[in-house]
Amino acid sequence: MIKAGIIGASGYTGGELLRLLVSHPDVSLELATSRSLAGKPVASTHRHLEGFLDLKYENPGLEEIRERCDLVFLAVPHGTGMNYVPELLDGSTKVIDLSADYRLDIPVFEKIYGIKHSDPRNAVYGLVELHPEAAREYFVANPGCFPTGAILSAAPLAAAGLIDIAVFDSKTGISGAGISPTETSHYPNLAENIVPYKLTAHRHRAEIVQELTRLDGNLRNISFTPHVIPTIRGISTTAHLFTKEPLSTEDVRGIYEEFYRDKPFVRLPGGVPSLTAVRGSNFCDIGFEADKENNRVVVLSAIDNLVKGASGQAIQNMNLMFGLVETRGLWTPATAP
Amino acid sequence: MIKAGIIGASGYTGGELLRLLVSHPDVSLELATSRSLAGKPVASTHRHLEGFLDLKYENPGLEEIRERCDLVFLAVPHGTGMNYVPELLDGSTKVIDLSADYRLDIPVFEKIYGIKHSDPRNAVYGLVELHPEAAREYFVANPGCFPTGAILSAAPLAAAGLIDIAVFDSKTGISGAGISPTETSHYPNLAENIVPYKLTAHRHRAEIVQELTRLDGNLRNISFTPHVIPTIRGISTTAHLFTKEPLSTEDVRGIYEEFYRDKPFVRLPGGVPSLTAVRGSNFCDIGFEADKENNRVVVLSAIDNLVKGASGQAIQNMNLMFGLVETRGLWTPATAP
Amino acid sequence: MIKAGIIGASGYTGGELLRLLVSHPDVSLELATSRSLAGKPVASTHRHLEGFLDLKYENPGLEEIRERCDLVFLAVPHGTGMNYVPELLDGSTKVIDLSADYRLDIPVFEKIYGIKHSDPRNAVYGLVELHPEAAREYFVANPGCFPTGAILSAAPLAAAGLIDIAVFDSKTGISGAGISPTETSHYPNLAENIVPYKLTAHRHRAEIVQELTRLDGNLRNISFTPHVIPTIRGISTTAHLFTKEPLSTEDVRGIYEEFYRDKPFVRLPGGVPSLTAVRGSNFCDIGFEADKENNRVVVLSAIDNLVKGASGQAIQNMNLMFGLVETRGLWTPATAP
Amino acid sequence: MIKAGIIGASGYTGGELLRLLVSHPDVSLELATSRSLAGKPVASTHRHLEGFLDLKYENPGLEEIRERCDLVFLAVPHGTGMNYVPELLDGSTKVIDLSADYRLDIPVFEKIYGIKHSDPRNAVYGLVELHPEAAREYFVANPGCFPTGAILSAAPLAAAGLIDIAVFDSKTGISGAGISPTETSHYPNLAENIVPYKLTAHRHRAEIVQELTRLDGNLRNISFTPHVIPTIRGISTTAHLFTKEPLSTEDVRGIYEEFYRDKPFVRLPGGVPSLTAVRGSNFCDIGFEADKENNRVVVLSAIDNLVKGASGQAIQNMNLMFGLVETRGLWTPATAP
Repeated sequence: MIKAGIIGASGYTGGELLRLLVSHPDVSLELATSRSLAGKPVASTHRHLEGFLDLKYENPGLEEIRERCDLVFLAVPHGTGMNYVPELLDGSTKVIDLSADYRLDIPVFEKIYGIKHSDPRNAVYGLVELHPEAAREYFVANPGCFPTGAILSAAPLAAAGLIDIAVFDSKTGISGAGISPTETSHYPNLAENIVPYKLTAHRHRAEIVQELTRLDGNLRNISFTPHVIPTIRGISTTAHLFTKEPLSTEDVRGIYEEFYRDKPFVRLPGGVPSLTAVRGSNFCDIGFEADKENNRVVVLSAIDNLVKGASGQAIQNMNLMFGLVETRGLWTPATAP
Repeated sequence: MIKAGIIGASGYTGGELLRLLVSHPDVSLELATSRSLAGKPVASTHRHLEGFLDLKYENPGLEEIRERCDLVFLAVPHGTGMNYVPELLDGSTKVIDLSADYRLDIPVFEKIYGIKHSDPRNAVYGLVELHPEAAREYFVANPGCFPTGAILSAAPLAAAGLIDIAVFDSKTGISGAGISPTETSHYPNLAENIVPYKLTAHRHRAEIVQELTRLDGNLRNISFTPHVIPTIRGISTTAHLFTKEPLSTEDVRGIYEEFYRDKPFVRLPGGVPSLTAVRGSNFCDIGFEADKENNRVVVLSAIDNLVKGASGQAIQNMNLMFGLVETRGLWTPATAP
Repeated sequence: MIKAGIIGASGYTGGELLRLLVSHPDVSLELATSRSLAGKPVASTHRHLEGFLDLKYENPGLEEIRERCDLVFLAVPHGTGMNYVPELLDGSTKVIDLSADYRLDIPVFEKIYGIKHSDPRNAVYGLVELHPEAAREYFVANPGCFPTGAILSAAPLAAAGLIDIAVFDSKTGISGAGISPTETSHYPNLAENIVPYKLTAHRHRAEIVQELTRLDGNLRNISFTPHVIPTIRGISTTAHLFTKEPLSTEDVRGIYEEFYRDKPFVRLPGGVPSLTAVRGSNFCDIGFEADKENNRVVVLSAIDNLVKGASGQAIQNMNLMFGLVETRGLWTPATAP
Repeated sequence: MIKAGIIGASGYTGGELLRLLVSHPDVSLELATSRSLAGKPVASTHRHLEGFLDLKYENPGLEEIRERCDLVFLAVPHGTGMNYVPELLDGSTKVIDLSADYRLDIPVFEKIYGIKHSDPRNAVYGLVELHPEAAREYFVANPGCFPTGAILSAAPLAAAGLIDIAVFDSKTGISGAGISPTETSHYPNLAENIVPYKLTAHRHRAEIVQELTRLDGNLRNISFTPHVIPTIRGISTTAHLFTKEPLSTEDVRGIYEEFYRDKPFVRLPGGVPSLTAVRGSNFCDIGFEADKENNRVVVLSAIDNLVKGASGQAIQNMNLMFGLVETRGLWTPATAP
């Protein structure tokens, strides 16, 4: 049994880790931390977990955490992961960081986040379909939610060197903004509405650029615009891809089927992917249509932002890091409708 | 392994049986029938099951079904269950009928549904918390969705002979109305709205009356009014109960804790139960507040109509009928938020 | 032209007054106050009013307000209306108070709200269909949102002395909870959910009791339970009424048609009233079905909580107070779908 | 008074014309046609109009319609407008056609819609902000909903010859798909979801191309992908515009302010436009942000698809055609929240 701990367990990402881990056959939940809730039962705030765990929130020191856990998930705000990582890794404990701190090259991180980085360590970028090398590592930087959907939508064409311009127009459910009420999450502001934001300069663009240019060093024309839609979960990405040569839909299908062969969590079901078909699950469903005449392909991806976009992907990484099959504890269909 | 078949697998109830059964460790899905879709892959209509089963819809005869299956779930319209049951039970195959046909005494059924019943057989009313005797039976009539939430909300006080008048005001997600588009399920008609219907004479009232009067023969003042709310899943029932004597909230809590001791799927989490905390799961969460001065108790129950209100409860019955622990394959937390 | 001012114009009730008043042919908007926003354009927070008014939020003294306005709407929190009313009324300015302060007899108010009342003044309870005497007054206490829907649903039967027990089960859109984000208004908590609250003791019950017992001094068995549904606007009330004698649906129709004859904002359209058909309008639509056998009538009412439940009704009172026809500036159909 | 008739009044577009026209001070509603509903009161299907009109649906011949009406709105399916227009225009009656039949050059129409056009007549493309010449015409082709939002978002930059590539990613409420229930409008399919469709070849693209290339003959790289979001009303368009030269946000603001000077229904409120701020109104709100470094501008537009995207715009055209001020009967703020 993997003794697992979660630092920052009271938010949505933490709650989703807990939801998935209580059903994981090889994990024993060892601790869940929260500064403000220490002493309270975890199920008193994650009400749906009533009956599934007896844990109380704690707030132990890092040394104690390291001693009690084989693996620590960091579900903490951007800019704070680096405060935990060095000490946690000072032993045999493995770490999966769901914050943004180790996803980008340090100069890029410092520029984009406006934060001085205190730890020069490298991490694997844990988008498992592109970076299976997590299997050999103690430390993984779990990808951002938008980048997961965007990168997976374009990676096969990027790897083939076929993309000229990539415009990612993404639509996310509001759970991506977290558990605390805000102006945007206020029901009358979001229901019957859609909220575009950070039109040209969302931080997640840097992850998309980093990973797609790893696949195609010449691909630099990448733009990204996110929107919040009135749903709880899910990210639907519409990738408007202009290609260097004309492609038919069948050409595209061939490229995607080849690229994602043996990737169990990427499905190409035909037709338009739906958030409904991935809700609560770790799948990324992809669909596409080519406009051959105009050297254009529209690719769609659908993920659950809290699962494949965060906690599920973290567990997918955990499985690899501990020598388990990738799908262990994650092979569950979506809750649809 | 239990070889299980589903007659009528293309609707929401059938899809939910499939979703739950593909993860059940003791079940082998043998067949899924649909007249209109025979020959098509099940995952072509239940898109979220892509990758989880290779079944195609079939339309075999009842004798073949009986031979291939240890257990058949009937997910068919009201008034048609009786066309399958006698022949299916003519051997060692067990049957769980999700239609309304065998839930009520025959004269009541014939009056309420306006249908002549062709099969005088009795069935256990499969509300497991009240009827664990399903464990000894070959045939179970699975309860209606509204009755499940309503009966569980009031049963402890009814069993104690304390209820004078019971008014059940229930609110359901639209998935209870089925997979086919209707005026009510048309998004612009339901979003930003609530749709009361069958204000005084919904058919499910008869099940509520039957079960509560089994618990208290004198309790006959029972009314029920359903509403559709703009949600996909869930039934929230507000039971306005006038009691024969004044009760405090603590009195009520004592009665409910005692009644539901050792019933794993009924939770009394404190506070107001939430559809979010049961979504996708087989739980019935119950809360209450007494107005002692006015001999009144308000009891709330929350279930997922497709799980505890239909397919999950059917599997709970299956577990009992096959000597498994009640929670087998069903012990999964809600997908929240 | 009526020179009108709004104290507390930055919330939903204030915004709705502004929305309706900018189109009112006999009103000149004189001022809109907000302490925290003083100096900012009103349209900078009420974005939909861009182009309709040049007002900036102000924070003048009461004497100045009294001098500049023929009429002041108080859209302030409960317990604070009494801080404005005495001084505002010290002249010829009229006042419509949308807070709860003057709706109840003072001892009842003090008990229910737990606040010492500082002003012994009486006010007309401005539910126009029951209290047209507002036409002769300088001061009106505008009713609460839930009481408006509940009282109108039951008043005809109460006035006929026919009600034995009244259970009001109300469902409101979240805008009734105000413009500030809260746990309840947080989208992931409300979408796909329903939130019952204050199960036996909501403050608005006192208004319902007060007005229905004015109509029938013997009617004391009145209970009220509110719920928040995932909609922005609207209150749907299901009144479960047990009657002293058996009534048919046609009997009920006759009583309601007679009672609401010449009440332009109460409609009896037949069938089940819909929030969609009243959204954005000042109507109260009512429907009903009798269960004669069980001495029970279910009555439904639908209002827009911000219009008939608050600001529209306030303007309806204004029209009467200034000798205008009741429907002036309010005779607009709902925005449906 | 303009005697107005609506052919095809039972759908959403017809209902919205009725909603707006009952409040228009210069219009007398003369007739509303529906083949299937002839004889029934209009308010029996458009329930929100109860009390506002006594019309019954009729089904008279075109000659009678022409005689009774000064103006006819055609709210009929694509491909059928041409069956009415020639005969209706054979006199002094004016016609506004909300179908697609006369929006495009005939060869383009025939190619895109796959229908042989039977009437070679030209019509003004009634996007008033670009085509005020409607004021001199008897016949106007009312624009499509998506093109209205898309064209208005890009027109100023197109007119300045600045656009190199334009990618329109639009998100619409489901009311655009009509009043009849469909798979897409089925609540469980749309709620908590987003539905991209016609990824590269939606018919409305042709209108966008036609109008933007009228403004800039060299601009041919135009793509358009629509999505349905879980809202009733509203179209939010994200225009990803690559420009021929670097522009700052302030440059863009200057161009838009100049272009839309004296266009009362286009607002540039600053920030991100919201569907909430235009709901039920005839406004098109526009916002933008430039990424100067990458020669890219993201422009957002928000409209109500049933008002500015259909019926409101038709009335705006009517006002011009009858010599009224453009805003007559339309100068109403959105119903927000």
